[in-house]
Amino acid sequence: MTEETSAVMPLRKAAPSFAWEGVDRLPYKEADAAPFKAISRQTLFSDARLNGELRYFEIEPGGFSTLERHAHMHAVMILRGGGHCLIGASVHELSPRDLVTIEPWTWHQFRARREEPLGFLCLVNSARDKPQLPNAEDLALLWATPAVAQFLDGF
Amino acid sequence: MTEETSAVMPLRKAAPSFAWEGVDRLPYKEADAAPFKAISRQTLFSDARLNGELRYFEIEPGGFSTLERHAHMHAVMILRGGGHCLIGASVHELSPRDLVTIEPWTWHQFRARREEPLGFLCLVNSARDKPQLPNAEDLALLWATPAVAQFLDGF
Repeated sequence: MTEETSAVMPLRKAAPSFAWEGVDRLPYKEADAAPFKAISRQTLFSDARLNGELRYFEIEPGGFSTLERHAHMHAVMILRGGGHCLIGASVHELSPRDLVTIEPWTWHQFRARREEPLGFLCLVNSARDKPQLPNAEDLALLWATPAVAQFLDGF
Repeated sequence: MTEETSAVMPLRKAAPSFAWEGVDRLPYKEADAAPFKAISRQTLFSDARLNGELRYFEIEPGGFSTLERHAHMHAVMILRGGGHCLIGASVHELSPRDLVTIEPWTWHQFRARREEPLGFLCLVNSARDKPQLPNAEDLALLWATPAVAQFLDGF
């Protein structure tokens, strides 16, 4: 499969503000695909010879990722700033270098604090399914837990 | 395969000095298996449902990893300190957040500076081959390049 992965740069230097040589800062998702706010995506490692992909996501102050679940796992390391994540029915506070594991089919969402961004690495399988969004019943169940409701409401 | 991966902690907080809750700091390799110096290994993410593994390696000041090559790729992000790496016949200087890609069957070695550690994340496929060490002919070829000889000599 090497023909799919030509011109690999052995070293890509870090640039200021969590950017990298040869890495594009892209929109998190296609607009209107799902609810989210103020978040960017950079694919750091993606190669036909690697079975995992490593991405860097950055959520601006007050922003959040899509509330979703899927069959694939997320393995996350916080790199910058702070915030909270919802995993299932629990809300966790996040600081740099914290490790977050999101098991299959677990509802999850990341939120940056109002006053600082939240940047994190996310490892996923290269071959993975598409996320599922919550329906009305799923949302009602999530909002029924006070700590989750407070998180979903943006604190 | 979920029976192999019970009791996943959703959040493992970072501890001082690049340690983490629930993560053991282990020897880099079994002693005497191959030449290396002053290096530790922490497995951050390894799960039967993930096709990649994320490890954190830390090389003490003046230390180095094994000079080796293998069929699997390494995808590396520097997290702490500084140093150099040899990739094929090139030597690269490393700073925090730099990204290093080591293609299959490429000789490689990491060295910390004499005055600071070198800590980095390394993503690999969960299923991978064992490293190969250089024979006398491989070493002679590597030492024939002045910049490589200087690196191998520890600068």
